[in-house]
Amino acid sequence: MQFTSEQRLDDGVLERAFTLGEIPGILWTPGFASETAPAPLILLGHPPLGLGKMYPRLVARARHCAAQGFAAATIELPGSGDRPRWPAVEQARADLRRAVQVGEPVSDAIVDALILPLVDTAVPEWQAALDTLLALPWIGGPVGYSGGVISIGIRLALVEPRITAAGLFAGSFVPRAIFEEARQVTIPLHVLLQWDDAGNDRQAALDLFDAFGSTEKTLEANMGGHTGVPQFAGDAAARFFTRHLK
Amino acid sequence: MQFTSEQRLDDGVLERAFTLGEIPGILWTPGFASETAPAPLILLGHPPLGLGKMYPRLVARARHCAAQGFAAATIELPGSGDRPRWPAVEQARADLRRAVQVGEPVSDAIVDALILPLVDTAVPEWQAALDTLLALPWIGGPVGYSGGVISIGIRLALVEPRITAAGLFAGSFVPRAIFEEARQVTIPLHVLLQWDDAGNDRQAALDLFDAFGSTEKTLEANMGGHTGVPQFAGDAAARFFTRHLK
Repeated sequence: MQFTSEQRLDDGVLERAFTLGEIPGILWTPGFASETAPAPLILLGHPPLGLGKMYPRLVARARHCAAQGFAAATIELPGSGDRPRWPAVEQARADLRRAVQVGEPVSDAIVDALILPLVDTAVPEWQAALDTLLALPWIGGPVGYSGGVISIGIRLALVEPRITAAGLFAGSFVPRAIFEEARQVTIPLHVLLQWDDAGNDRQAALDLFDAFGSTEKTLEANMGGHTGVPQFAGDAAARFFTRHLK
Repeated sequence: MQFTSEQRLDDGVLERAFTLGEIPGILWTPGFASETAPAPLILLGHPPLGLGKMYPRLVARARHCAAQGFAAATIELPGSGDRPRWPAVEQARADLRRAVQVGEPVSDAIVDALILPLVDTAVPEWQAALDTLLALPWIGGPVGYSGGVISIGIRLALVEPRITAAGLFAGSFVPRAIFEEARQVTIPLHVLLQWDDAGNDRQAALDLFDAFGSTEKTLEANMGGHTGVPQFAGDAAARFFTRHLK
């Protein structure tokens, strides 16, 4: 891990850009982190739109985390941002757009081609990032995962024992294989659903919530469309992490 | 309104039993209420099991309200507790039990016979209680309604303009006529659903949430069975009222 820049935000949060091999990432630590005990860590998931485009929303979430005493970190997804293009996934994305535009049902084949390579590649990268982040003096355990592509969150919740709680956003397609993995997830979950998200299959999201094997799982559904998650829902997710990571 | 007893609970909450005509009720005010501004009021709904039986859960909810600066009040439902029996509703309840025991679907006729008379009688009683409670010096507005028979909450949310926010528990049968009323409800709603409530029709609860006309509505679903609403869900409901009644 190489730190490439460092800046102190106005609320005292320390933001460090880094690279992990070829993969860019960002780490945010609460202002007091260097002086007190290592902070628990929340991994900030995000859609594959590139860290640059996602930065305003990520830094807002990271400040929110820091205000609760959490460090937060994220890495670029494969095929996004400044990382090399990924023609197979871009083809699947084009197929998805076309199906949606002409009103066709989105086939399992398209969803699999879009999501499974992303999950298979990204999850080991997040795990490698976790290895490195947890070795830093300002970062302790436990670790939470929050948001982003829900299939990545599901796989991480299943295979990465250092993640003890996950806040998921049920707003994207989930391949059948990942749906089956969801049945085996047992960590506490806080699942956000935008009830009136026109581009999302609400029934599939409800079925997915039902499938999770966790004995503590909460579904919070709100209005406001895909990107309109209300502030109070963010606060509720923060309290979920405070219950489980502190 | 006649006060029939008064006691100070160990956390300073003042509990007053009262009768309103033939109807018994209980009012709880925060310890500081007499010295400062009138407190906003939350009406505590409950199932038709009698105030005596429900008292432990009601007083716990009232203490929770008081800790947030709210007064809380409840009245006995018609046909429950020390109020006169109500043979027609008791017959409907027996019909319901029999249908459930033999595994028959619960007919609309049974649900209507069980719920509609209760709503039609109870709602004007809650409104009369509100008239009286809001005239007391320790009670101000705005007013919230919380829990209990959800059909009563829906009707109150629709017809009683002094109620500005409602926390509802989607755990009981809802007649079709009340379902239609739900479409016309526009106040902010916080709806709790116990996802694994074996005796509840989950799909009907989701359909009901979908039907509500409110632009701000939240569904929070948790595990734990019908009576196992987790403590953190109670806290989330309290924050909902704090957002809307303060």
